[in-house]
Amino acid sequence: MTEKPGLSIWESTPEASLVQSRGILTQIVHEHVDALVGKFYSVFLTHSEGSTFLSHSVVNDRLHSSLRRWLLDLVQTDPDGDLSGFDARQIKIGEVHARLKIPNHLVMEGMTLLKSEISRRVAQNNPDAVQVATTLILLGELVDYSMRLMTRSYVTDTTRRVQTDEAFRLFSLGQDINLERETQRAALMEWSQSVLFGLLGRGNKTLPVSLSASPFGLWVRHRAALLFQGSPILRSIEKLMIEVDEDLLPSIDSETPSSIVALQERMDEVKFHLNDLFQAAANVENGTDPLTRALNRRFLPSVLSREITLAKEGPSELSVLMVDIDHFKSINDTHGHSVGDIALSHTAATLLDFVRVSDFVFRYGGEEFLIVLVETGRTEALTIAERIRQRLAALDIPLSEHENLKITASIGVATFEGHPDYEYLINAADRALYEAKRSGRNRVIEACAA
Amino acid sequence: MTEKPGLSIWESTPEASLVQSRGILTQIVHEHVDALVGKFYSVFLTHSEGSTFLSHSVVNDRLHSSLRRWLLDLVQTDPDGDLSGFDARQIKIGEVHARLKIPNHLVMEGMTLLKSEISRRVAQNNPDAVQVATTLILLGELVDYSMRLMTRSYVTDTTRRVQTDEAFRLFSLGQDINLERETQRAALMEWSQSVLFGLLGRGNKTLPVSLSASPFGLWVRHRAALLFQGSPILRSIEKLMIEVDEDLLPSIDSETPSSIVALQERMDEVKFHLNDLFQAAANVENGTDPLTRALNRRFLPSVLSREITLAKEGPSELSVLMVDIDHFKSINDTHGHSVGDIALSHTAATLLDFVRVSDFVFRYGGEEFLIVLVETGRTEALTIAERIRQRLAALDIPLSEHENLKITASIGVATFEGHPDYEYLINAADRALYEAKRSGRNRVIEACAA
Repeated sequence: MTEKPGLSIWESTPEASLVQSRGILTQIVHEHVDALVGKFYSVFLTHSEGSTFLSHSVVNDRLHSSLRRWLLDLVQTDPDGDLSGFDARQIKIGEVHARLKIPNHLVMEGMTLLKSEISRRVAQNNPDAVQVATTLILLGELVDYSMRLMTRSYVTDTTRRVQTDEAFRLFSLGQDINLERETQRAALMEWSQSVLFGLLGRGNKTLPVSLSASPFGLWVRHRAALLFQGSPILRSIEKLMIEVDEDLLPSIDSETPSSIVALQERMDEVKFHLNDLFQAAANVENGTDPLTRALNRRFLPSVLSREITLAKEGPSELSVLMVDIDHFKSINDTHGHSVGDIALSHTAATLLDFVRVSDFVFRYGGEEFLIVLVETGRTEALTIAERIRQRLAALDIPLSEHENLKITASIGVATFEGHPDYEYLINAADRALYEAKRSGRNRVIEACAA
Repeated sequence: MTEKPGLSIWESTPEASLVQSRGILTQIVHEHVDALVGKFYSVFLTHSEGSTFLSHSVVNDRLHSSLRRWLLDLVQTDPDGDLSGFDARQIKIGEVHARLKIPNHLVMEGMTLLKSEISRRVAQNNPDAVQVATTLILLGELVDYSMRLMTRSYVTDTTRRVQTDEAFRLFSLGQDINLERETQRAALMEWSQSVLFGLLGRGNKTLPVSLSASPFGLWVRHRAALLFQGSPILRSIEKLMIEVDEDLLPSIDSETPSSIVALQERMDEVKFHLNDLFQAAANVENGTDPLTRALNRRFLPSVLSREITLAKEGPSELSVLMVDIDHFKSINDTHGHSVGDIALSHTAATLLDFVRVSDFVFRYGGEEFLIVLVETGRTEALTIAERIRQRLAALDIPLSEHENLKITASIGVATFEGHPDYEYLINAADRALYEAKRSGRNRVIEACAA
């Protein structure tokens, strides 16, 4: 491609025609700039998603003038000249959108609207079909070029922000989380106690401070919402708080025992949810599976995606093993789930012990493990898989003083062959595993080429 | 806006004209679909950024047919009918792009190219300027509509991936990092020892395994690259490894002392960088400033951006205090930096002790702290700031048995007034602080309305 990506019209159109089209665009935008900005506002102020971003008066004023400036900049800039200043301005706009969290697709919608509005006006003043088409193509390429630059910086800055947000969330979670749980249980108790004392001491004269406005309520909205992002349990707590504040508190009365009982019940519910909340977070945030110490499957895309990029760029190879314990269901059925768990943890320990520090072992499913072998080609991966199969078959898993459990495993092997989608590699290993199962178990089968 | 966002042409154009334009588009795309796909490939296979995504044969074949299908789908879909199937297909495409890490702006560039190619062909066959314009506007709105849906799902999935990647990275860093450092020091030593033994024992006959291929090399490429993303120190280590493998190793000889010395020097350099790497990571990853235990400034956008969203959505207010110790430079100059540090840590402890569990105290600059007060309006924020000022002025900071240090601070206060940009709020507090300094220090000044 040329140095002016996307401005392909520049190469395929006679210069005189382009100069004329630029003239037409410049004239129309200059003449109609207020109408264009006005149309933009009339559409987006009633737009379900867009209106929230335009509500504040400062934004309104600023955007009005910056949209005007952007339109004039667009037609004044010579696409055949030095674009570095224009580029820098588009990049800056994308950064501002990222900071204000204005979704990129919304900006794109605005761009389409402006293109259509200008295009309509071009056709109204010009009877020459070819000239109209040239002008509309030029307009489209210019606006799209600007939008691409905005998108690039928007995506860069947004991903950077998301990364920092997640780091902050995990940092906050990493602080003493048990202390936090107890502190908040205490804050909750303190509030209900103050309500009760208020009722008894002051003869129910003053309305107590609401639960939402208490330190516990503040914590729920500002800290818990950060720590337990989007947890349904958190929403239950918020719902209960509103119930307490709106339904119970106004009518609570020390002379009406049922109102006190109702409050107590709600408090117990909140406490119960609070415990659940911390418990659920402990499970989700685990990087490893507590039973097997293998990596949590949710990190598989992170690892495989990275490793595929490395394998694509360099000469190094990449293989994946899918390991599944044979007849696991019958182990569970015959000996019970605790023996099944023992088999799982011994298998995982064997795998973790076997691989290098640069490899990755994931708990993929119930009795299924996925191993990522970095810088490992087909032949080597098959050798490693076969050794793992033998090692597992040789295990004596002690169940009691006199009883050992024997297990075998089937293994599917797939080697990266250039397809950039990690799901493709996982599926290949999965199909090979299926084939190993089907052909009799306790064996290693290699994925056939796609 | 209507239910068909972006298809504004539908509202402003007579139906007969639209039907005709759809007919023109359908005919041209059907007739030229191979030429369009061919053009797309000829451009993107030589595209500096795009070509890497089209190199693999499977992708090539698949994309060829899916681009074909997408073009036909685009012109066959009735924009006035049920779009749910079409929408779902665009969303799916965006998800695939996200998984394959194909930058969205690159897809947009391809879209612009296709629009221009189709537009050119529309103009060649049609002398009616208004009809050409209608057709080109319709084409633009259809393609842009598809691109918006792709962008939305691309951004959603990409941010989710980045979030998980960061969680995985921090999880990996959270594992025993001191153990990791020592293990890798040992792996490095082990490699150089094996080189030396090889030289002495086997009379320099066999070439030793390269440092890059050793366990240490694997660790650098696959684990360190994850843990210390983009660290320049890591790049120095990689460069040294290449030097060792390509320049030193082939000519190393036990009879040539200088070659042994050169290896030793390089090993010392790698060790030195390895220490630095872990040290630098420890500093960067800290959520809090080690001296003051205030939050690291890099989390400020995460906190303020969230709190502004909450304040925008609900009735609750939000204020920010910028606190700066007065004449801090002269404290440092008079008593030395260690006393300056003592003043800082006492100030921070006072602030941290003063605020609620739902508030946030950041180390903003050298002697500057930023406090985020959630659900706190203007009057309350001024009261809190004044109390903080008094509390700091009353501090006796013990320097020795007989000597106490007295400090004062200036405080700028700003309250959220609806502007969605957190930098706007910070700047307001900063200007107020500047005003407090200018008008004599040891005072609280409120930001004036914008």
